[in-house]
Amino acid sequence: MKLLEERIRRDGVVRGNGVLKVDRFLNHQMDVELFMEMGKEFKRLFEGEEITKILTIEASGIGIACVAAQCFHVPVVFAKKNKTKNIAGDVYTTEVESFTHGKTYDIMVSKEFLNPEDRVLLIDDFLANGAALMGLISLVREAGATVVGAGICIEKAFQPGGDRIRKMGVRVEALARVGSMSEEDGVTFL
Amino acid sequence: MKLLEERIRRDGVVRGNGVLKVDRFLNHQMDVELFMEMGKEFKRLFEGEEITKILTIEASGIGIACVAAQCFHVPVVFAKKNKTKNIAGDVYTTEVESFTHGKTYDIMVSKEFLNPEDRVLLIDDFLANGAALMGLISLVREAGATVVGAGICIEKAFQPGGDRIRKMGVRVEALARVGSMSEEDGVTFL
Repeated sequence: MKLLEERIRRDGVVRGNGVLKVDRFLNHQMDVELFMEMGKEFKRLFEGEEITKILTIEASGIGIACVAAQCFHVPVVFAKKNKTKNIAGDVYTTEVESFTHGKTYDIMVSKEFLNPEDRVLLIDDFLANGAALMGLISLVREAGATVVGAGICIEKAFQPGGDRIRKMGVRVEALARVGSMSEEDGVTFL
Repeated sequence: MKLLEERIRRDGVVRGNGVLKVDRFLNHQMDVELFMEMGKEFKRLFEGEEITKILTIEASGIGIACVAAQCFHVPVVFAKKNKTKNIAGDVYTTEVESFTHGKTYDIMVSKEFLNPEDRVLLIDDFLANGAALMGLISLVREAGATVVGAGICIEKAFQPGGDRIRKMGVRVEALARVGSMSEEDGVTFL
C-alpha cells in the first residue's frame, strides 16, 4: 500500500538491532485517517470473505482494529495480556513468547466472545517473528472458530513470522512488507 | 446519552464490590458502531472548542479514542502504562494509583507528541476514582499544553473522581452517569 510505505519512509525511524519506530503515526501517536485508509484496504483485500469478528491484541492493535472494523461492520475483540497468573476458567488462553522483550506472557479472551460459528479476521500493527499472531490463531482455534486470515500493517519480511504463518495455511495480507532496513539506507519494501 | 444507557441496562453486568462489567460492548468486545455514536456525541458536546489532539490511556481507552477522533480530525496519542522503571529522558511521566488493582504504576507519553500549543481532549472509557484521568491531566500540564476537557463514556458518579476533577476546573462530560448500582436492582442513571 503506497500510502503506508510513503509514510514509513517519511516518518519511520530505523534503529539498530532491527527496530523500526513508527510511533509518530501507528503505535503511540495514531493517525486515524491513515487507519481508515488501511481499513478500506483490508476490506478490499478480504472482499467476498465472510467475517463475523475482528480479533486483535492489546495495546497497539486496538486502534487499527476498531477503525478497520467500521469497514466490516463487525465487533472487535482484543486479547488481553495477562499480568497475573489468576486466570478464571471462562477464558481461552495461550502463552506468547516475546522475542522483542525476551520474556513470555499469557494472552486471554473471554469464552463469551469467541464462538465456533465465528469467522475471524486477525488484525495487528506488526508481524515479525509471528509470536503474537500465532497466539491469536491458537485462541481462535481453541474456540473452534475459523481464522479467515490476518491483516497486518507492517510485516518485517526478513524475519520468519510471515512465512511460518503462511505455511500453516493462514492467509496473511500485509500492507507494507519491509524487505530490508538499516540506519544508513532506510527501508526498502518488497 | 440514551443509547449508551440502554446498552448498559441491556448488556452490563453489576458485580459485587462496585464492579460494572461492560465487556460485551465497551472494553473487551467492542461495538464500533456504538463507538461512532459516542464519538459524534463527544463532538457535539465539545463543539466550538479548538482541539488539536486526543489523549487516552492503554488499553481500553484506545478504541473509543480512535473512533471518536474521526469526528474531530485530530491524531490520538495513548499514554503507555510503564512496566519497567527504565524511563528514558524524552518522555513525560507520572504515577497513577490504581484503586481497582491496589497498586501504583507509571504512565508515560513521548515528549514528541505533546507540545505547549496542543489543546487536548482526554478520552477514557471509565471515570470512578479519577486516578487515571488525573494522571493524563498531569502529563498534559507537564508538557505545557492545555486540557480542553475530558470525554468519558461511563462515570460512576457515586465515586469521587468526577467531582474531584471538575473542582480542579476541568470540564468533564460523561455520556452515562451511574448514580447507583446493585446486583439486585441493576443500574440507575443521573
